[in-house]
Amino acid sequence: MGSKRTARREFLRSSAALAGGFTLGSVAPALGQEPAPHAAHPSPPMIKGDKDEVAYGGRSKYETSVRISHPVGGRPSPDQFGLTFHIATPLQDSVGVITPSSLHYVATTRGAFLPDIDPKEHRLMIHGLVDRPLTFTMEDLKRLPSVTRLHFIECAGNRSSRRAKNVQETHGMTSCAEWTGVLLSTLLKECGLKGSAKWFVAEGAEEVKGASSMPIAKAMDDSIVAYGMNGEAVRPQNGYPLRLMVPGLEGIFHTKYLRRIKIVDQYYMNYNDFGHLDQDAKTAALAYQIGPKSVITQPSGGQQLPGKGFYEISGLAWSGGGAIKQVEVSTDGGKKWNKAEFKGTPQRMAHTRFSYQWNWDGNETELQSRCTDEIGQVQPSREQIAKYWNKPYDATFSVPGLDNSIQPWRIARDGSVTNGNA
Amino acid sequence: MGSKRTARREFLRSSAALAGGFTLGSVAPALGQEPAPHAAHPSPPMIKGDKDEVAYGGRSKYETSVRISHPVGGRPSPDQFGLTFHIATPLQDSVGVITPSSLHYVATTRGAFLPDIDPKEHRLMIHGLVDRPLTFTMEDLKRLPSVTRLHFIECAGNRSSRRAKNVQETHGMTSCAEWTGVLLSTLLKECGLKGSAKWFVAEGAEEVKGASSMPIAKAMDDSIVAYGMNGEAVRPQNGYPLRLMVPGLEGIFHTKYLRRIKIVDQYYMNYNDFGHLDQDAKTAALAYQIGPKSVITQPSGGQQLPGKGFYEISGLAWSGGGAIKQVEVSTDGGKKWNKAEFKGTPQRMAHTRFSYQWNWDGNETELQSRCTDEIGQVQPSREQIAKYWNKPYDATFSVPGLDNSIQPWRIARDGSVTNGNA
Repeated sequence: MGSKRTARREFLRSSAALAGGFTLGSVAPALGQEPAPHAAHPSPPMIKGDKDEVAYGGRSKYETSVRISHPVGGRPSPDQFGLTFHIATPLQDSVGVITPSSLHYVATTRGAFLPDIDPKEHRLMIHGLVDRPLTFTMEDLKRLPSVTRLHFIECAGNRSSRRAKNVQETHGMTSCAEWTGVLLSTLLKECGLKGSAKWFVAEGAEEVKGASSMPIAKAMDDSIVAYGMNGEAVRPQNGYPLRLMVPGLEGIFHTKYLRRIKIVDQYYMNYNDFGHLDQDAKTAALAYQIGPKSVITQPSGGQQLPGKGFYEISGLAWSGGGAIKQVEVSTDGGKKWNKAEFKGTPQRMAHTRFSYQWNWDGNETELQSRCTDEIGQVQPSREQIAKYWNKPYDATFSVPGLDNSIQPWRIARDGSVTNGNA
Repeated sequence: MGSKRTARREFLRSSAALAGGFTLGSVAPALGQEPAPHAAHPSPPMIKGDKDEVAYGGRSKYETSVRISHPVGGRPSPDQFGLTFHIATPLQDSVGVITPSSLHYVATTRGAFLPDIDPKEHRLMIHGLVDRPLTFTMEDLKRLPSVTRLHFIECAGNRSSRRAKNVQETHGMTSCAEWTGVLLSTLLKECGLKGSAKWFVAEGAEEVKGASSMPIAKAMDDSIVAYGMNGEAVRPQNGYPLRLMVPGLEGIFHTKYLRRIKIVDQYYMNYNDFGHLDQDAKTAALAYQIGPKSVITQPSGGQQLPGKGFYEISGLAWSGGGAIKQVEVSTDGGKKWNKAEFKGTPQRMAHTRFSYQWNWDGNETELQSRCTDEIGQVQPSREQIAKYWNKPYDATFSVPGLDNSIQPWRIARDGSVTNGNA
């Protein structure tokens, strides 16, 4: 991180002095540089790939983008909830839509110890209110009809705060991957649901039996018992060898190390409910569909613009309500909203990369993005959220429940970018 | 690899004895198993993530799928062409569409030594028949309008042979990733093409100056100067920090370690032409658009079916001609062709995952797949290719040029799967 940021700053300073002819738009800055007429092209030093690099290659030693402990959930020593393993994705360095599995965010309420599961020994049991309780081996599951879908996961704790400095700290507890597995509905149809089946409890093979109650309608809709992630096996930190995907619901419902699904007739309270206790059990469970949310990743907090002129503003948008339908970007603090373009076709419950071409005039301003999903939900401002909860919008305001508020990034006259919520 | 295959065989044998009630289709085999009434759920041992695993996580120790030296191009010691670093993707273990960057195929004609490039020092120079020759730093490029697209790359040497035993050996020299970068046309518009500009030569920063001549129309169409791959920087083995993507052309044209593009008025012959010399230079360059091609990855050579009954046949299809429009699967050696389904929407010049639900009756047979792309090109059989080249189709026949022939997998009565071309 540190060295990367320094490198970026160095570039951005030197770039301001470039004298080349590159222009994009009428008031764009110089970009690119005339080459010397007989520019020397010295060959770089050569490295030899070793046996391990042939088998399973790694990234460049110059790449230093890493996950960090999340400043809200992840403290160096266990806090009151035992939240010791919350690590956030470096969204400020993200390109495209896929989060590399090595950089996918991780949140566990069960400490830094992960189950060490031999897939040959792993079983998934489905029982409770079914005609035929069944267990499946991993190889059983891989013989069945599969789906491959792009889906995000987001932790309920993913939120901007006054003390967050960059987009990894404000929004790094969400990631997006290509998931492959069997639809849960395929398995449940084989087990045969009884008429009294209304909810299901998914349990992972973790020390304290991570479990969540979810409505049976979600199980029969788009839930996936996933064994594949970005073209290979699900990673250990993300639930190896089997993870339940419940697209659009908050991260804690995406049960890792999935080993048991019990079909039940009512909502059962579990350890995982610590995060969203509510007087009404159904509200507690159902209120936690991720709302429409977006954030600008470049430029974002901690980055530095080298000077006025052309920039591609780039960011991510997602919603638990379905596919993203529209993203708008404001470059004047929310007065005027401009339609952003998508890189590729938005997928349901997946990150969508958007961009907006911007000529910065060199004055102080604020960048914001807001999205609308396919069912018409619009991402709100923090002020709108305060009004919704009937709370005063002042320095003490913090968003109750999930926070999908618009993230403002302040651009100073010197090109520095800071958190507009700070 | 070895241990994985053994595990698969063990499962498939034991699975045949399962007595559970899982049925899919009318003649499907038993899959799944009734759980013991009070099945014990012992907690697995726990592992603690270390600092490195927090920063940039790895895969499970139980996952042993790896790349191998390609049996055709990759020999342990340099051959006459110096082809010492051709490594193939384990397609037999692939799920979904994306190839993990760590398993992306690699081919270089310049030995096992890769350029060790500091991105802060790297420059791309564009010169020749342009109004304004320009050089770009990596950070210059990242400020410009970007695209993110799924594209395959395939080596011209990717072909089935009599001695190939599995799909890694027959087809492992192709992979698919999400690439992010700047359209080459964006850069060329800024440089300004002169009227005499007809071809361009792309050069990488390699020991022997890997370079290829390509028509200027390809540069102005969909070519990408890519810095991103699967959500992070392009990997060193795939051209870090900058790779030219020329979607649909054979792999050697996707210039790695891209540092120079010269705009020229004619086809220039280069070191890279060793692989496709032709009396006519234009034919040599232009004939190498990848044809429509598909292969079944599960079940495939070296795998073992546990017995008759239900299987999801799964595979990949791709074409240099555009998006895949249709895939058909034959389960009777090519007599009847059945329409396969797609997992997701086929993208232009990208791998497309297809599947076909199959009930095996336990008799000897042969599985095949063939695809049609959006411009109507149909994948041929080896016999059709022999006819096209006016050569006898016998034991001595080997496909001249690129080989996009249909791959047959033979299923024996004992469930073993072998190469139908052997």
